[in-house]
Amino acid sequence: MLPGDTNPTARIAIVGVGQVGAAAAYALILGSVAGELLLVDVKTDWRDAQVRDLSDVAYSINSGTRVRAATHHEAGQCDMVVITAGSKWSIGETNVQHTQRNVSIMRSVVRAMTPFRPDTVVLVVSNPVDLLTSIAQELSGLSKSRVFGSGTSLDSMRIRGLLADKAKVAADSIHLPVLGIHGDFQVVAWSTATINGEPIDKFFPRDAFKRADLENESKHRSESVICAKGATPFGLGSIVSSICSSVLCDKRDARPVSHFQSEFNCCFSLPAILGREGIMRTIEMTLDSDEQASITRSAKRLRDTVERIQANQ
Amino acid sequence: MLPGDTNPTARIAIVGVGQVGAAAAYALILGSVAGELLLVDVKTDWRDAQVRDLSDVAYSINSGTRVRAATHHEAGQCDMVVITAGSKWSIGETNVQHTQRNVSIMRSVVRAMTPFRPDTVVLVVSNPVDLLTSIAQELSGLSKSRVFGSGTSLDSMRIRGLLADKAKVAADSIHLPVLGIHGDFQVVAWSTATINGEPIDKFFPRDAFKRADLENESKHRSESVICAKGATPFGLGSIVSSICSSVLCDKRDARPVSHFQSEFNCCFSLPAILGREGIMRTIEMTLDSDEQASITRSAKRLRDTVERIQANQ
Amino acid sequence: MLPGDTNPTARIAIVGVGQVGAAAAYALILGSVAGELLLVDVKTDWRDAQVRDLSDVAYSINSGTRVRAATHHEAGQCDMVVITAGSKWSIGETNVQHTQRNVSIMRSVVRAMTPFRPDTVVLVVSNPVDLLTSIAQELSGLSKSRVFGSGTSLDSMRIRGLLADKAKVAADSIHLPVLGIHGDFQVVAWSTATINGEPIDKFFPRDAFKRADLENESKHRSESVICAKGATPFGLGSIVSSICSSVLCDKRDARPVSHFQSEFNCCFSLPAILGREGIMRTIEMTLDSDEQASITRSAKRLRDTVERIQANQ
Amino acid sequence: MLPGDTNPTARIAIVGVGQVGAAAAYALILGSVAGELLLVDVKTDWRDAQVRDLSDVAYSINSGTRVRAATHHEAGQCDMVVITAGSKWSIGETNVQHTQRNVSIMRSVVRAMTPFRPDTVVLVVSNPVDLLTSIAQELSGLSKSRVFGSGTSLDSMRIRGLLADKAKVAADSIHLPVLGIHGDFQVVAWSTATINGEPIDKFFPRDAFKRADLENESKHRSESVICAKGATPFGLGSIVSSICSSVLCDKRDARPVSHFQSEFNCCFSLPAILGREGIMRTIEMTLDSDEQASITRSAKRLRDTVERIQANQ
Repeated sequence: MLPGDTNPTARIAIVGVGQVGAAAAYALILGSVAGELLLVDVKTDWRDAQVRDLSDVAYSINSGTRVRAATHHEAGQCDMVVITAGSKWSIGETNVQHTQRNVSIMRSVVRAMTPFRPDTVVLVVSNPVDLLTSIAQELSGLSKSRVFGSGTSLDSMRIRGLLADKAKVAADSIHLPVLGIHGDFQVVAWSTATINGEPIDKFFPRDAFKRADLENESKHRSESVICAKGATPFGLGSIVSSICSSVLCDKRDARPVSHFQSEFNCCFSLPAILGREGIMRTIEMTLDSDEQASITRSAKRLRDTVERIQANQ
Repeated sequence: MLPGDTNPTARIAIVGVGQVGAAAAYALILGSVAGELLLVDVKTDWRDAQVRDLSDVAYSINSGTRVRAATHHEAGQCDMVVITAGSKWSIGETNVQHTQRNVSIMRSVVRAMTPFRPDTVVLVVSNPVDLLTSIAQELSGLSKSRVFGSGTSLDSMRIRGLLADKAKVAADSIHLPVLGIHGDFQVVAWSTATINGEPIDKFFPRDAFKRADLENESKHRSESVICAKGATPFGLGSIVSSICSSVLCDKRDARPVSHFQSEFNCCFSLPAILGREGIMRTIEMTLDSDEQASITRSAKRLRDTVERIQANQ
Repeated sequence: MLPGDTNPTARIAIVGVGQVGAAAAYALILGSVAGELLLVDVKTDWRDAQVRDLSDVAYSINSGTRVRAATHHEAGQCDMVVITAGSKWSIGETNVQHTQRNVSIMRSVVRAMTPFRPDTVVLVVSNPVDLLTSIAQELSGLSKSRVFGSGTSLDSMRIRGLLADKAKVAADSIHLPVLGIHGDFQVVAWSTATINGEPIDKFFPRDAFKRADLENESKHRSESVICAKGATPFGLGSIVSSICSSVLCDKRDARPVSHFQSEFNCCFSLPAILGREGIMRTIEMTLDSDEQASITRSAKRLRDTVERIQANQ
Repeated sequence: MLPGDTNPTARIAIVGVGQVGAAAAYALILGSVAGELLLVDVKTDWRDAQVRDLSDVAYSINSGTRVRAATHHEAGQCDMVVITAGSKWSIGETNVQHTQRNVSIMRSVVRAMTPFRPDTVVLVVSNPVDLLTSIAQELSGLSKSRVFGSGTSLDSMRIRGLLADKAKVAADSIHLPVLGIHGDFQVVAWSTATINGEPIDKFFPRDAFKRADLENESKHRSESVICAKGATPFGLGSIVSSICSSVLCDKRDARPVSHFQSEFNCCFSLPAILGREGIMRTIEMTLDSDEQASITRSAKRLRDTVERIQANQ
């Protein structure tokens, strides 16, 4: 964290302190991002153990952040709420069954927090993130700009980092967002890729690397990590901490996050400027026609799913 | 981390990337403490998943630290080696059996790293930490000041933090070390306790709090957390990161850590000044006679155990 | 600055942007300590040049702090006000004349800010600091804990740093405050000196260094620097920035600063805990009888001066 | 400074500790960018006063940087050398006379440092910066990539910051370099301007602001500040500190700095990637024809001047 990336007057709630929620909390405390961190979980023994372990972090580094257990209702009154609650895949469960289970968890945690403080900002991290963000936004009663999801933010940082290592430049000299629906159909916006403002083809010889290799590593790394150790707590946790800092310190930096797209009546990732009110502005991208078509196709599918789920509510 | 707490030219190895090792790695990357982080583990699939998850952290926050898998031999050539390798308790296992298992793991990882680079510094985190530090020191062939253990460093930060919250002062105004053998027989050095240089009795009315309450919370919190979630990764991970920074940046700050006590021919915690060569100096403490007797008693028991184990090697 | 040392929602005013005020502003911006910095000076061309030069700092490092010119009235409505306004010594001017001139400048800037926002905190840096703090406190109409002076805070950090270099330990392991009236009669509280909680005589052989040498360097360094270059902007500027951070982030750390001593009815330096309301608590020190007598003697002289000045108002 | 922006093993020399050199030193200490800072100045009383004032900064914030006086010869053996030595304009002096005086100061300080440690990196800050960088590079005997000048780096950060304030986005989302010869003929590369990768015309309505206004403020701010207070120490000092961090921590970020352009046989600003060896790579820019012509024109003039001066040596 930079100085200026911290806001000691702010309160953040983490709803769901499994591996991802706890890793996010750990990064938030190490960076002293907020003054108070409230941990919420239906498993209260587990939650209390997380409070104790994470309080030790604050003590160990003399962090300005204090940690305590809280109820869903208290969470809804914080400056920012991070929702990581969700279930793991169970053996024998179908894709559809698993999604239904997570939709119903999301509904239940959002309802338990309602009514929200009207100026709170909600960040959804649970998967499938675009669907669950769409559901949470609808139910929350908050303005649409105040509820968004982590979307393809980690995928974007990852591919940017992999490319930076190849180019031997600082990652923040590179512009290469991953857009659309997080998962199998996400789109790497190669047509917009620049290094320090110049098209990447001017930087690399065309055969310097295979775009598909970077794309695959970016898309499939999470799966491979989950396969070996059950979750990707650290990558997600650090992105969550960094997004909280953008919002609470009104940093106005741009990231691809899942947010409401009125044309499709659902949420997915396009670059947006983040600030104290959540999504301050969407950045309109000029994509090539393949990229655009691919996003449109999967966005329509998501819209249909969201509408079907809301109809069956 | 402070600016000045980072050393981009340094390399750290983490040997054993279970929960504690990974939490230490995560904090080290978030703080950009070193330029390179090498992860070592006999379970290579698990290790590689940790490398990928933790690399995402570096990408997410644009950290200066790069992460990769490595062998034990490479670890022994780093500027600093953190050993967290050890087994979890198995049901039905006795205390003695479990200790024997961890002694033999420690021997095997230390041997696999030998010969060490002569100016490396080794930090032992695995439990029972004082015994395993004594064993590792003997086997490593390194000078005694270059091998030390986390000891009671977390317990000390914890009780200091708990007291700071009661006193409503910054934790670093408080001096209250926990000393001796980490665990049931560790000693809180109340006789030396000060707040901003003044005895704590001048600060608190005598009945403001029960010392035994703070002492119990400090001593038993780790157990209670382990009971609920299997490990205390975050507290230990953040202390490890902060100790690495003290060593690699030659900070010369004082902490209770487990280090060689020639009078007892084994390692346990007294305050020491940490710097680029490991233990730069022990701080001699003036304890009251009860405190001193209690430390002497348990130190002798530890010495006997160490000698018995070394005899049976 | 640490993460957690910054408060992006806070506003600080600097009244008087000569060398010390500007160096304080520079450090505050580099550390992103506050969200907004207001510069106030009767010389408006000079002030506007400082605003432009310091705005470039914010742009250069992407600091979260914005800088602008402001009136005295606006300054009085900030979260914190730093007063560095004062005159330089003119050739031929007597000590008494110079003091009178600075007293009248202090009165005029404090009146121009009145009425203050009742929860603001005022830090006086102009010299003679104890006298001017006493005057400003009286005139401000604020509660006594909300107006204090830099006092011997720089002298304390300096002697602590000099001793740390000799001892080869981190400066924050050392406790050695400088107390009383800032200047020729300030008192180094050697009787309370500790290194990591142990008396310094246990750390150093008695002839390791001459206390008087450190004391002289601590007391006379400012003069020698002023003699060569007209001011000590950097030392003072960095202390001011660090005190602002203690207050605005409610850090509760202890420092010797000039604050109201009811026994003497004027302000001078004893260690105090700083927080969001200014002086949260004085730390009572157990000094030896020489140290105590010396402080009492000069405190009485200051009280007489303050009373005489207030009578002649 | 970010964690990871500091290198405690590095040594920096500042040659010339007037206002700009001292402000650079102050920022370097506040950020703990290096382990040691060597101050060099022909006026030794002044230099020693700067050493004492700046040492207090290190003590005040517990910085890891130590400050000391040094000779030109010692400076040439550091990891990095910052040259701010130069004269102020004297009344009655012509432009040409002033330039000649500064050329001869530059020659004399560079010669006094020769032979340089072959892997040192030299940053020239004195004005006229492009001319003096060209001269210093030639004389130093170092490889061309290891000697560069601050050039238009401050102008670029300034216009980027002014635009960011208008756009209400984080400054690092904006790409808008100022290129060419620092001063009246520098060129704002509007044709390449983007906000988060998209052309700025998509972001702003065309009449949202006048480009010429931003351009003038960027170009003339330094003059107006110098006119009112004699120098622009803070803006330049903070850029210098940040460039030192890019080099010493091998950050590989891109900035416009004055470096060797073989086509013109002299130094001026184009974006370059900075790292441990100085200029790691120039970024080729696609400018529009007016921008390109304007740079070419003034570059040729500079080349002629440099050649004339070198012929008359």
